Amino acid sequence: MRQARHPEPGEMVLTDVVAALGDPIRVGVVRVLADGRERGWGELRVPVAKSTLSHHLRVLRDAGVTRTRQEGTRCYVTLRREDLDSRFPGLLQALLAAAIADDVGNQVGLADRAT
Amino acid sequence: MRQARHPEPGEMVLTDVVAALGDPIRVGVVRVLADGRERGWGELRVPVAKSTLSHHLRVLRDAGVTRTRQEGTRCYVTLRREDLDSRFPGLLQALLAAAIADDVGNQVGLADRAT
Repeated sequence: MRQARHPEPGEMVLTDVVAALGDPIRVGVVRVLADGRERGWGELRVPVAKSTLSHHLRVLRDAGVTRTRQEGTRCYVTLRREDLDSRFPGLLQALLAAAIADDVGNQVGLADRAT
Repeated sequence: MRQARHPEPGEMVLTDVVAALGDPIRVGVVRVLADGRERGWGELRVPVAKSTLSHHLRVLRDAGVTRTRQEGTRCYVTLRREDLDSRFPGLLQALLAAAIADDVGNQVGLADRAT
């Protein structure tokens, strides 16, 4: 599989980013990634099928919210926090604060160890 | 037509609000309403059919972003800015700033006079 294409910061579309964040599973993924660490897809614990998680991760990536990196057969994902903060100042911060306050996305977590 | 139901601030769902804002027409409506004034639906100039505008206004209302008031045969709409700011601090402000910077929603405007 070739490396997936990611929008440059200047190519990011506000409504794509906002729409990508309008889903509790995707908000949960963003919350898990908010510590800045790259995570293997297998580390993410979500109450959905792998194909559904893959869809959510693609929506986040296509909008520019996350960066996906492939290494061999494994995929890794990071939050593009600096890019988002420079393009849409305050948006991610407000979203994360509201999500934490409202317990949105708390069904997403990390596995005890990477798989 | 009876008055439409609006969620109380405590009933607002973050992802519903965010999803409602993930559309350029709806962002444009929010931008037009951001001056705090109530507007008749007929005052809104949008490049979509009336039925489509009606749909967008319902999505905004159901999420709690706007308040719709009916008077006789006319409908009026306002932005629920205080409710949004108290429930999700900084979210609307960041969204509006990004929308203005990126010219998102600028296809929505006001008619010269109310119809």
